[in-house]
Amino acid sequence: MTNADKLEAAPVFCLEDLYVGQRFTSGSHLVDETQIRRFAGEFDPQPFHLDAAAAKATLFGGLAASCWHTAAITMRLLVQGGLPIAGGIIGLSGELSWLKPTRPGDTLDVVGEIVEITPSRSQPNRGIVRVHSETRNQHGEIVQTFTATLLVPRRGVS
Amino acid sequence: MTNADKLEAAPVFCLEDLYVGQRFTSGSHLVDETQIRRFAGEFDPQPFHLDAAAAKATLFGGLAASCWHTAAITMRLLVQGGLPIAGGIIGLSGELSWLKPTRPGDTLDVVGEIVEITPSRSQPNRGIVRVHSETRNQHGEIVQTFTATLLVPRRGVS
Repeated sequence: MTNADKLEAAPVFCLEDLYVGQRFTSGSHLVDETQIRRFAGEFDPQPFHLDAAAAKATLFGGLAASCWHTAAITMRLLVQGGLPIAGGIIGLSGELSWLKPTRPGDTLDVVGEIVEITPSRSQPNRGIVRVHSETRNQHGEIVQTFTATLLVPRRGVS
Repeated sequence: MTNADKLEAAPVFCLEDLYVGQRFTSGSHLVDETQIRRFAGEFDPQPFHLDAAAAKATLFGGLAASCWHTAAITMRLLVQGGLPIAGGIIGLSGELSWLKPTRPGDTLDVVGEIVEITPSRSQPNRGIVRVHSETRNQHGEIVQTFTATLLVPRRGVS
């Protein structure tokens, strides 16, 4: 996807604008140790997310971001242009897998692909869209997959 | 579960200590508007999470926490005694559903139930445990379900 394509994609997408196989790419976010420790201190205070020395003796072998931090950064990247859905990104459910830890110094981005579109029969102003997203680090390694079920409005139907 | 039971449950559980149907209850966490807006500002900057007036005109009908904020608070409650697994809570994957928004003033707690235990064949020092958790508000309404796949160590096998 070129920058020109990204600019064209910046306007929001309604249900009618989406198709299975359509892909979106987010901007990127650099994760540092301060962010990792701050998030973990508030939401996931475990040694492998808080203390690099203590983390060495664990399965992680070094400081790793909370998986919920990776998920939250993914959401930020999707909201900030990575998945330009009309009315915002409203998630109903989803399946998450964490394949690799996010480490201090990692730069994450997200590629999303539309995998299913189901117009609502009972509510003609919206539909349900399934989006599979892969959150990747600077080496191209997938750190998280998230297949989300989203509520997406139709254009001009209120 | 009485407070005495909770105190007895405070020591950590290894794979051998868990059984299908076993339940754990977390402490509770009061969510306020400041927390909701701060989390959303960093990770999910959408109007319905940031601005009570703007949120009124949306599907949410008022300020609502980011679903990832609900997920992160759930993790905090699990880590702080809600799911006392030896070596910490290490998630591999999971399925999330958000059934109701978390609102300012809500007090959340989490009930977890062990639903599947699979000792690893290739790695005798651990196993895979599936835990179904329900995050509830002060009215007993379920705001989130999360069925997690966790890595759990065996006792005394290194």
